[in-house]
Amino acid sequence: MKDAAAWRDYFVATDDEGLIALAAAASRAVQSLDQPRPGPRTNLTPAELRARVRALDVCPYEGVDLSTVLDELGTAVWAHGVRPLDVACVAHLHPPSVVPAVVTELSIAAANQSMDSWDQAPVATEVELHLMDFLGERIGFPASASGVMTSGGTASNVLGLTLARSWAASKVGVDVLKSGLPEEARRWRFVASDQAHFSVQRAAGQLGLGRDAVVSVATDSAGAMDLVALDAALARLDDQGLIPIAFSATAGTTDLGAIDPLAAIGQRARERGAWFHVDAAVAGAFVMSDALGPRVSGIELADSVTVDFHKLWWQPFNASALVVRDVEHFDLLRVRSNYLDRGDELEGMINLVGRSLDTSRRFDAAKVVASLRTIGQRDFAAMLEHLVELSDYCAQRIEQSTDFALLAPSSAVTCVFDAPAASASDLRRVQQELLAEGVMVLGRTEIRGRAALKFTFMNPLATRTDVDQLLDIVAERLRAG
Amino acid sequence: MKDAAAWRDYFVATDDEGLIALAAAASRAVQSLDQPRPGPRTNLTPAELRARVRALDVCPYEGVDLSTVLDELGTAVWAHGVRPLDVACVAHLHPPSVVPAVVTELSIAAANQSMDSWDQAPVATEVELHLMDFLGERIGFPASASGVMTSGGTASNVLGLTLARSWAASKVGVDVLKSGLPEEARRWRFVASDQAHFSVQRAAGQLGLGRDAVVSVATDSAGAMDLVALDAALARLDDQGLIPIAFSATAGTTDLGAIDPLAAIGQRARERGAWFHVDAAVAGAFVMSDALGPRVSGIELADSVTVDFHKLWWQPFNASALVVRDVEHFDLLRVRSNYLDRGDELEGMINLVGRSLDTSRRFDAAKVVASLRTIGQRDFAAMLEHLVELSDYCAQRIEQSTDFALLAPSSAVTCVFDAPAASASDLRRVQQELLAEGVMVLGRTEIRGRAALKFTFMNPLATRTDVDQLLDIVAERLRAG
Repeated sequence: MKDAAAWRDYFVATDDEGLIALAAAASRAVQSLDQPRPGPRTNLTPAELRARVRALDVCPYEGVDLSTVLDELGTAVWAHGVRPLDVACVAHLHPPSVVPAVVTELSIAAANQSMDSWDQAPVATEVELHLMDFLGERIGFPASASGVMTSGGTASNVLGLTLARSWAASKVGVDVLKSGLPEEARRWRFVASDQAHFSVQRAAGQLGLGRDAVVSVATDSAGAMDLVALDAALARLDDQGLIPIAFSATAGTTDLGAIDPLAAIGQRARERGAWFHVDAAVAGAFVMSDALGPRVSGIELADSVTVDFHKLWWQPFNASALVVRDVEHFDLLRVRSNYLDRGDELEGMINLVGRSLDTSRRFDAAKVVASLRTIGQRDFAAMLEHLVELSDYCAQRIEQSTDFALLAPSSAVTCVFDAPAASASDLRRVQQELLAEGVMVLGRTEIRGRAALKFTFMNPLATRTDVDQLLDIVAERLRAG
Repeated sequence: MKDAAAWRDYFVATDDEGLIALAAAASRAVQSLDQPRPGPRTNLTPAELRARVRALDVCPYEGVDLSTVLDELGTAVWAHGVRPLDVACVAHLHPPSVVPAVVTELSIAAANQSMDSWDQAPVATEVELHLMDFLGERIGFPASASGVMTSGGTASNVLGLTLARSWAASKVGVDVLKSGLPEEARRWRFVASDQAHFSVQRAAGQLGLGRDAVVSVATDSAGAMDLVALDAALARLDDQGLIPIAFSATAGTTDLGAIDPLAAIGQRARERGAWFHVDAAVAGAFVMSDALGPRVSGIELADSVTVDFHKLWWQPFNASALVVRDVEHFDLLRVRSNYLDRGDELEGMINLVGRSLDTSRRFDAAKVVASLRTIGQRDFAAMLEHLVELSDYCAQRIEQSTDFALLAPSSAVTCVFDAPAASASDLRRVQQELLAEGVMVLGRTEIRGRAALKFTFMNPLATRTDVDQLLDIVAERLRAG
């Protein structure tokens, strides 16, 4: 072996020398974040950013000193990212991250457990199961509940709807993962509101049903599913001989934060023997607050629930979960594999690959547990409640203003609005200008065909004064148009 | 706002005070990895691990001091994980991770860019594209190539085969993601070897074709696809009126490391107008070595290639890529969304959500770039070549030994063997004993219905002496049975 000494330095070692080196490198990585950044991002153009990035040779013949590499990343990359902690970073459900999670990411990467099989993650498997049980309890699920971590809300929704499809197929005696979609699958429909996340449609596309198999139910003025429209849609499906195999309700829509009437939708799903999925990527965090929890009442009726820890739990990407009311539902998915999940393991050795659409998978549960233990339930709930109040305040200010028109009440942490005097292209101009100049990362979307701007409040350190200033900036830009 | 001061400490801040606090916490996280661990893991049972984990309250009412939380994770979790750097951790394609990647994970989490849209990842988008271009060049793709990072080899394979399905559908005028599988999809088949990773079957299941739609082609004694068997299988498909829409070749099978005859398979795919996918999760790294590169010759004919950075590139989970020979193929996937990817952005603002099955997605490209720049091409290639030599050496030793029988030549970094005197249950006993006692994390699988043991060499710091010792331990256990 030629270069054992040189190679040794590349790898994480947990002896004294290795840990000293790792700590020094970590300290340098932290320093590399120390960049002069005025506002939510710098004003470099895409072409300028590209030039700086392309100046770095991805893999030179001979390696570069690690400290230099980290410093280069600082000046070329971290200096020009967006800063989710900046109060003017309000476009998306894109949170600032908490310290316990960020430093635990380092431990996760150093230990590099892989969640697919017990022999790659003996204790990590138990930590993930413990977190899933905790979440199941907060949701109000029975003791039969469990779950699995996924890479994001989209993956969680796809997994939930994959289970729904298998469930429907099993009732007509078909193992759809083995034999493919049966003929009657042409009549299968997913039911969701017209404000549901696009991942519901994407799941239908992926699963071979097609986006057209998603029945889009009209919403009320707040953006929540309208039950009269739902019942009318169900009656039409009955008339056409079509079968709603899954009801996907949303707890916290992407744009309006609206929460569908979960209990009523769940009841209809139950009556029809359909799967009841709740996409609580956004408002799942409400189960942590006594004040906000009642808003997601009915979630405990679900067969599967999506919760994104990388939204209102302030976790760095990626950290999502699919929680199911009955762990046995995962059997719908399980395929034994010779090398990972044979089924002849010793007592208690659980291979989580059996409940996941992934194989190798990182130990994201560790950072969530570290964060929740550090923050505690009281502060967690208080920060969440503060964000909801901040959004309510913003909605009030918009309603009182002559510059803006509120497009829907604030249901969670978003405010969507337009301006009576502004065209769609005015709104686009303002959002793109503020982004290009690095003044504000502002949301832009469409509500019922109407162009709109959007604030998303993810940062508990933001204040009412910050909200006032954000509104002033947008109003001024609109007037300057 | 009630507790701004207390809350402030929870969040990463990039001012002086914030960075000092972050560095201190990072240092404590590193310290928490300093646990007495003899061998690849401790010998605690699943029940004992469970008890220690369950003793931690996931979210107490009042938070616990961060240092305490990190220390608890150390003693309850990190002390009892598996250690991929230990030379006796040889079960899976589960690498020890490199320092530049591990500390960059901290920066990634602190900066928390989200790769779905430019306004959440302006410079990060350019870094990912730069890395994908680099990989495309090493593969030998034309300049039209590009790619996208995914959460793992399974996700990359699913994405590649999703494109293949859309490609086949588009040729008969169907947008399958919109309208669902057309009637003729009953005749669609994926072609892969009987040693292909189970994610190919899983993709077929997910996509609505079913695992039964995967035509399993016999392999030669090394585990590579047999071309005579392939041509026979294709002739049978023709006779039955079935259509191979995708050929999925494997470069580095999970158990044997075998590399299919890529060029010949690619040629057959081309002749039939089918999609050519190469699952190079394992041997994709060979494109980094002049000596090993020729083994994956023909990879440049692919339409899509899976490469796992979290295997032989020594990256912590998750880091995988799907590289396509023509970036326009991603248009098969794209669905505009009002809030993320409207299509009216300023020049150069690319929203990567348009080429991904994920939405929110972490900036894993940063750690790969940091690692490759630090290690350099020379050392990277040398470490990879060392592992292949080590596996060859192990295969020789097994062939020379009367204790063992080699089940196939070593094609990459794995050796699969059994023992003439041992039954399947003897092999199981040895593997489970060594795992339970924390002596060795040994692989166990099945090759052509025969129970087998497996070494997977992922750690470049391992030596021939280590290999000798591993073989001695297994031989002794078998004799003790």
